[in-house]
Amino acid sequence: MTGESVFTYGAPGLKFGTGASDEIGYDLSTYDVRRVLVLTDPGVAATGHPQRIAEQMHAFGIETQVFDAVHVEPTDASFEAAIAFARDSGPWDAYVAVGGGSTIDTAKAVNLLTTNDGELMDYVNAPVGRARAPRNPLKPLVAVPTTTGTGAESTTICVLDVLAQQVKTGISHARLRPTLAVVDPALTMTQPAGVTAAAGMDILCHALESYTARPFTSYDKKTPEQRVPYCGSNPISDLWSEQAMSLLSTSFRRAVNHGDDAGAREQMALAATMAGLGFGNAGVHIPHANAYPIAGRVHERCPDFRPAGYEADEAMVPHGMAVSLTAPEAFRWTFSSSPERHLRAASLLAPDHGYDAGPDALPAVLADLMRDIAIPNGLGEVGYGESDVDDLVEGAMKQQRLLATAPREVTDEDAAGILGRSLELW
Amino acid sequence: MTGESVFTYGAPGLKFGTGASDEIGYDLSTYDVRRVLVLTDPGVAATGHPQRIAEQMHAFGIETQVFDAVHVEPTDASFEAAIAFARDSGPWDAYVAVGGGSTIDTAKAVNLLTTNDGELMDYVNAPVGRARAPRNPLKPLVAVPTTTGTGAESTTICVLDVLAQQVKTGISHARLRPTLAVVDPALTMTQPAGVTAAAGMDILCHALESYTARPFTSYDKKTPEQRVPYCGSNPISDLWSEQAMSLLSTSFRRAVNHGDDAGAREQMALAATMAGLGFGNAGVHIPHANAYPIAGRVHERCPDFRPAGYEADEAMVPHGMAVSLTAPEAFRWTFSSSPERHLRAASLLAPDHGYDAGPDALPAVLADLMRDIAIPNGLGEVGYGESDVDDLVEGAMKQQRLLATAPREVTDEDAAGILGRSLELW
Repeated sequence: MTGESVFTYGAPGLKFGTGASDEIGYDLSTYDVRRVLVLTDPGVAATGHPQRIAEQMHAFGIETQVFDAVHVEPTDASFEAAIAFARDSGPWDAYVAVGGGSTIDTAKAVNLLTTNDGELMDYVNAPVGRARAPRNPLKPLVAVPTTTGTGAESTTICVLDVLAQQVKTGISHARLRPTLAVVDPALTMTQPAGVTAAAGMDILCHALESYTARPFTSYDKKTPEQRVPYCGSNPISDLWSEQAMSLLSTSFRRAVNHGDDAGAREQMALAATMAGLGFGNAGVHIPHANAYPIAGRVHERCPDFRPAGYEADEAMVPHGMAVSLTAPEAFRWTFSSSPERHLRAASLLAPDHGYDAGPDALPAVLADLMRDIAIPNGLGEVGYGESDVDDLVEGAMKQQRLLATAPREVTDEDAAGILGRSLELW
Repeated sequence: MTGESVFTYGAPGLKFGTGASDEIGYDLSTYDVRRVLVLTDPGVAATGHPQRIAEQMHAFGIETQVFDAVHVEPTDASFEAAIAFARDSGPWDAYVAVGGGSTIDTAKAVNLLTTNDGELMDYVNAPVGRARAPRNPLKPLVAVPTTTGTGAESTTICVLDVLAQQVKTGISHARLRPTLAVVDPALTMTQPAGVTAAAGMDILCHALESYTARPFTSYDKKTPEQRVPYCGSNPISDLWSEQAMSLLSTSFRRAVNHGDDAGAREQMALAATMAGLGFGNAGVHIPHANAYPIAGRVHERCPDFRPAGYEADEAMVPHGMAVSLTAPEAFRWTFSSSPERHLRAASLLAPDHGYDAGPDALPAVLADLMRDIAIPNGLGEVGYGESDVDDLVEGAMKQQRLLATAPREVTDEDAAGILGRSLELW
């Protein structure tokens, strides 16, 4: 068996900068569209941005409607409600998603299910769903992120909770990638500090996980049919990851602690975009795999936890926070797979960190940052204890699609070690 | 008037690596196509690659035809011949261009004129043509470069000589960008040393010119209608340019002098792709503007010049060579616009160069390289003399679309100084 010699790279078109969201009407007019559905969630709808973006399209003869009932942390039920709305009110020539990852992911599913027949579960990843590939091309989808984190504007997946099976899974296909990402830092200025911190840790882990991912050359040679969007670290994803880390090193603390610092907001938005372009092609691994059960079991295990900055009326761990809580220990464990990359990451994130050039450097840099931006000190502070570790391991090990990108093979014991050592981080 | 705050970025999908060109049949089958026209030039046809790529599509039920009469350095007449062939033998569901910039550019024009009505001159840039924008979407175009240089697989333009007006111009529109770039370093192994040297200087100048281009923030605020694909240097194009220069620093001399070094060929192919992604969004300036008259007037002024490595039965200056001949003096003149960028470029290209940190460093690094890879020592060695300078200035100053990206305003006198000092470089 020879090794892999080919990697792939895809990206949406990008319009970046303050004021970029004022031009979406024009941009859509070049696709020759007449009826556009704007999707958003109630919180973002309250900022007025989605309505403003919709109204600005009228000057280009575009009829619009705003669907403002996207569910944050979407489920199969919430996807189906959005799809039913779009099917009933359609046909639509294009979609615009204004919001965070939940909104952009919902728009991807709506686009898929209004251009292709069948039902949601036909397309959801196996074994949960039937993993059917779309037969028809999708409509133009413009993604307008209002948080600096998920990178959903760059990726080919949408994530959902399948309620009946109590499992988080997704739909993954190249055609789901948005046509155009419009990243306007002005839309991110009102993110509360807690949201900026958690979403920013998502950016950081996208960059770190794709930078330390298994190299594409380490896989067996794939046939074209076997290629997946996440092909392992490669020379292009590395560039994006490194640059995202450099941007975070100068802007992250400022954006959390001085939310009105427009320069820091712009750098965070660019870091989120770049990290999205990186992991959207390379993939993510252990911290993201762990995040599924950490976020998924919080209701039952830590019913009193409320994250700062979120209007949560029930227990929830924001995605970026869930990802970050095991990151220091995950990267201590992956250190041996590529010491030079772990040390380079530590230097990019904290050029003057002064830690010894060993496995502790990157975890220490991460812990310093997390403490400064008020991320909880480990799973314990969220409410998890020693007795929850086995359960979290079981949930993480189900994410084999992500763990396949880890630079070392992860056993149950390895995962238990990482999760157990993450109960308290500093 | 406020300054510009928005930049744009676009790129084709990319499949990169040895063996990537074996998978085009599969890739096209995902677009649901039935009839595909493969375009190439006679020289590349003789390598057998276009035929192999066409045959490999049959396994996916795709009917193919190979058009092997692309003209190197295309003209309006050669574009029209290719368009007529495609219109007569069509309709085609997709196009595959296997070759250098001439072939990829011809395929862009064929795609445009078989999906949109009218004639070639309707779409050519004003004032030469009527600069019409395409009304209809184009078909999928897969670009398979066989030289490491032009970056045409990433860009939204095609360049042609309009014979009756004796002028080089182009068609520029976002829809011309190929859908997918398939970059297979194995196809570039047979480039003769002279071709590798000239085409490699094109890569280097793409990277250097976009890195030193006028920053996008220095323009007046544009309306969306005024945006052009070349928006000036920006944080994304900078990344690509820097990385292309790093790759060239370790691979360029090796690829010229040891053409069988597969590692060097792969790095050159990656550098060409990255530089194409950079300049395809930022733009190029003085050396490319000068290249138009340097290449265009060679028949008349230097009838005896034959470049090494090219099978030329008449005088010609290869594009990359024409671009490179005024690069050292152009970058000496632009130094004051951003000393730190010029010095950083010199360091990326030659980390241990040892030249003083002033305006002479980058020109000296370029001259060292050009001497080592047997590029002519200036315009004089091609056959131009002092008495040709005014004529070359006149030709260069016509390229205002490119000169608009220069970091300083270029007068006739400035251009004369750069061209005059480029008669002998070392």
